[in-house]
Formats: sequence, structure tokens, C-alpha cells
Amino acid sequence: MVTQADRPIGVFDSGVGGLTVMRSLEELLPQENFIYFGDTARFPYGPRPVEKVREFAFQIMDLMVSFDVKLAVIACNSMTAAAYFDSRKRMKIPVIGVIEPAVRTAVRVTHNHKVGVIGTKATIESGAYEQEIKIANSKIEISTQICSKFVEHVERGDTFSDELFTLAEGYLEPLIRQGVDTLILGCTHYPLLRGVLHSVTKGQVELVSSAEEVAKDTYAVLHDLGLLRQTMSIGNRRFIVSGDSGQFLDVGSRFLAGLSEVESIPWEDG
Amino acid sequence: MVTQADRPIGVFDSGVGGLTVMRSLEELLPQENFIYFGDTARFPYGPRPVEKVREFAFQIMDLMVSFDVKLAVIACNSMTAAAYFDSRKRMKIPVIGVIEPAVRTAVRVTHNHKVGVIGTKATIESGAYEQEIKIANSKIEISTQICSKFVEHVERGDTFSDELFTLAEGYLEPLIRQGVDTLILGCTHYPLLRGVLHSVTKGQVELVSSAEEVAKDTYAVLHDLGLLRQTMSIGNRRFIVSGDSGQFLDVGSRFLAGLSEVESIPWEDG
Repeated sequence: MVTQADRPIGVFDSGVGGLTVMRSLEELLPQENFIYFGDTARFPYGPRPVEKVREFAFQIMDLMVSFDVKLAVIACNSMTAAAYFDSRKRMKIPVIGVIEPAVRTAVRVTHNHKVGVIGTKATIESGAYEQEIKIANSKIEISTQICSKFVEHVERGDTFSDELFTLAEGYLEPLIRQGVDTLILGCTHYPLLRGVLHSVTKGQVELVSSAEEVAKDTYAVLHDLGLLRQTMSIGNRRFIVSGDSGQFLDVGSRFLAGLSEVESIPWEDG
Repeated sequence: MVTQADRPIGVFDSGVGGLTVMRSLEELLPQENFIYFGDTARFPYGPRPVEKVREFAFQIMDLMVSFDVKLAVIACNSMTAAAYFDSRKRMKIPVIGVIEPAVRTAVRVTHNHKVGVIGTKATIESGAYEQEIKIANSKIEISTQICSKFVEHVERGDTFSDELFTLAEGYLEPLIRQGVDTLILGCTHYPLLRGVLHSVTKGQVELVSSAEEVAKDTYAVLHDLGLLRQTMSIGNRRFIVSGDSGQFLDVGSRFLAGLSEVESIPWEDG
């Protein structure tokens, strides 16, 4: 018998980054069924106008609803910034974004009320984290930093090189100088850089990863709704992209062990 | 050319629990080679005298040295408590245990200086966490709780049932009453219970997982020694147990996605 709890959790991103969120979700919810969608044909979303990103997000959510997901995770900073609040009003299922859970944790763990946020140009310039932090606690002093080159290092498998260390030292120097004691990793690629970030900050700065916080929130929401799947067997995973499935598999394997089968449903760029 | 950095990282435990540590290590150090040893023939170590556990730990470390590992991770609370300090003197390679990294983080993140520790009977009764916390900061108020039944739930794949929630509520009630704001997961099985622990503590308690902290420390130590493997390709993993490989594979797959091949080298119980 298929129960309400057997319906899959939908997870989506513009590309592979959201797979770090999948990884954390799988760790806490191994028995759940998952559908992951990566809009790789239209990646990256960063340079696009916010209205366009919102339109894409709603289009993907409609796809998710067609798969009868019981909960949707927006595993993408651009889409969360552009569409999270509207989608919560628009959707009949619970929606979880990557910004709010990380902010809530960062605001709770900081001792000196100095929080740093690192992310891509689009995410930092959207001001979404600053806005959310101000809502959570207006006394927090926020320092942000665009780390444009991190994504390409992660995607080519470099989480260790001297070049990366030099880059990270440069990016983090102003935040360390400001005295931040807590750092939000505001890009879904960055959990894979926790080693270098921990080293460069000499273990003195709390690293808050959206992936981890989203997974804990998803678990709590499903539990509160009585929708945790009750079975000891490991659930199914389905990965779908709008672009080339081979390329997604190549890069995605660095993000999620066991990624082996990827379907492609070609979408037009709109 | 095989360089010093190509030598594997050795990770060992009395059973499958250390695979959560492997998981975190792989995430931060995907390019590294790993050898994991689970002493499943002699599992569990908990009920054994501390001298015996120390003897076993040294025996496994000798095995690790025979594999020419560049760093050893004691991914086991009993062995860390019994043999960590001696092994650091005895070994010519860096050794990382599961207790110190978690304690250091917990002591840094707590706001109210009230830290909880949960673990198996053997770990809690060893007093190892309390001792280490007192060394780090003598002002910390420590509350401990033996959670005897968590391991069996995790091993049979239950990280979600109502029975587990009732159990967790009972275990955590005294710690919540004491007002702990930080909770050390003092057993390598417990990272898989972060969902239920987060829900039961209503997201108000920082969960500190040894697995995560050990991975960041390992990264930092290898970096400082110039021993981070410099390659974009994913490293090799080798899994060896002293008992039945099929059983390890069955249970271990819940702990580590992609676990597929396990060797067995039969050891006598000593």
C-alpha cells in the first residue's frame, strides 16, 4: 500500500550544487524517496533577472507537483532568494529554502553578533541573507563576501590546492579582520570546501552549512506532519536534468556518492 | 609516481559505527585514499576491560602501519578513551581520535556553559568526555546520559519511528531540564540520529558530531604537514573487517553510500 508518507521529497537546483543538500537529506532521511531536478540547460541562474528566476522556480515547482512530491526543497540560493516567500503562498505542500534554516542557526550560535556570509555574486548582491538576518536579529553585524571563483574549483574537483588556499585566504581576510565568529556558507557548492575554510579560519569560526540545516528542518517538518516514511529499507532516488545527463553525472559524482543514473527531459531556454 | 601524500588515511573502529566518520572524511577529502578496518569479530569493545581495548587498539594500529598509512583516525569512542594519548606517543604518524575535536567545538559554541554528552554505557562510564571537557574549560557544567538502545535502532535502519521518538524524549529530558545548549554526540552511530535529536530538542540545542569535527581536523593536520593528496580524481577506498564481510556490508550500507566491497582477514579473539 502506498501511503501519503511514501510520496517523494522533491529537491531542485539550477545545477549540481543542490546535490550537497541531497547528501545531507539522504543522511538523515535514508528511508525517504527523493526526486532531484537540476535545470542544467538554463544554468547558471545568477546572471538572470529576478523575475525570470522566479518564473523558472514556479515552473520547476509545477513539475515537482506533477511527481506528487510531499515536500519541496529549493536547494538553490538564487531561487530561494527570488521565489521562497511567494512559493510558500502558492504551493499546497510545505516548501523549504536554503536561506532561512542557515540564518536561524547562525543567529543562534554567534557569540559576538558578527556573522559573515559568503556566496556567489548574484546571491550576495540580492541582499537576501542580510535581509533575513536583520529580521531574525537586528543587532547582528553582517559582513558579506563574493567568492566568485570557488564554484569552478569545486566543480573541477579541487578542494585542496595551494591556489585554492591562496584564494580562500584572500576572500576571508576581510571577514576575519571584522572579527566574525560565524560564517554562513551561502552557496550549495561550499559545504565541499569546509576543510579549506576550517583551516584558513584556524578552527575559530563556526561554519554554518545550509545543506545540514535544511536536512534537519525537513526532518522536523515531516515529523510534525506525520509524513516521515516508516520503513527500514532505503528509499528510491531519481535524478532528472534539463540538459546533458552525462555531464551532470561527471560533475555530480563529486557531490553525491552513488550517483549513477540520470534522466534528461529537455527544456527550452525561456 | 607515488608521493608521500598518496599514502592512505587509516580509519578504524570495532564495527560499522566508524563509517559515519568515513562519510565525513570522504566529503571533505574525496581525493584521498582510505583504508577502513572494522574489528567486527571482537565487537563490541564496550564491555571489555580498558587494558584489553588498549591492546586491541595498538594491534590495529600496527596493522595500519603495515599498510603504510600517513595518518590514523581512531573512529571509535572506546578506543579513543583507552588508547588515544598513548598512541600519540607510540606512533610515528599523526593520530586523531573522536573525543578531542568534538570537545573543542562544544566548548567553543556553548553560550551558557552547559554541555550535554550522550553515548553508550561504556563511553559515558569511562568519564573520558568529562575529563577532556574539564581540561578544555573547567567552568563547563556537564550533563551525561547513557542512551543504550540508540545503537540497535540505527543498525536496523530505524531513524524515524514513534518508538525511537519516545526513547529519545526520555533520554534527553534530563539534559533539557538541566538547560544544556550544546550536545555532544558521543557515539559514532549518533550522527544518523541528528534528525530525531534536532526535533526532540526543538532546534534549540547545538548538536556536535565527532564525525564532522574529526574530518575538519584531519584536513587541517594533513594540510599543515603538506600531505594533502594533490589530484582531481577520487581516491581509492578499501574496507577490511575481522569478522563476516557480508554482515558488515548489509549494515554498513546504511552508514556509507556506495559501500560495495569488503575484505575479511580473520582475527582470533584475544
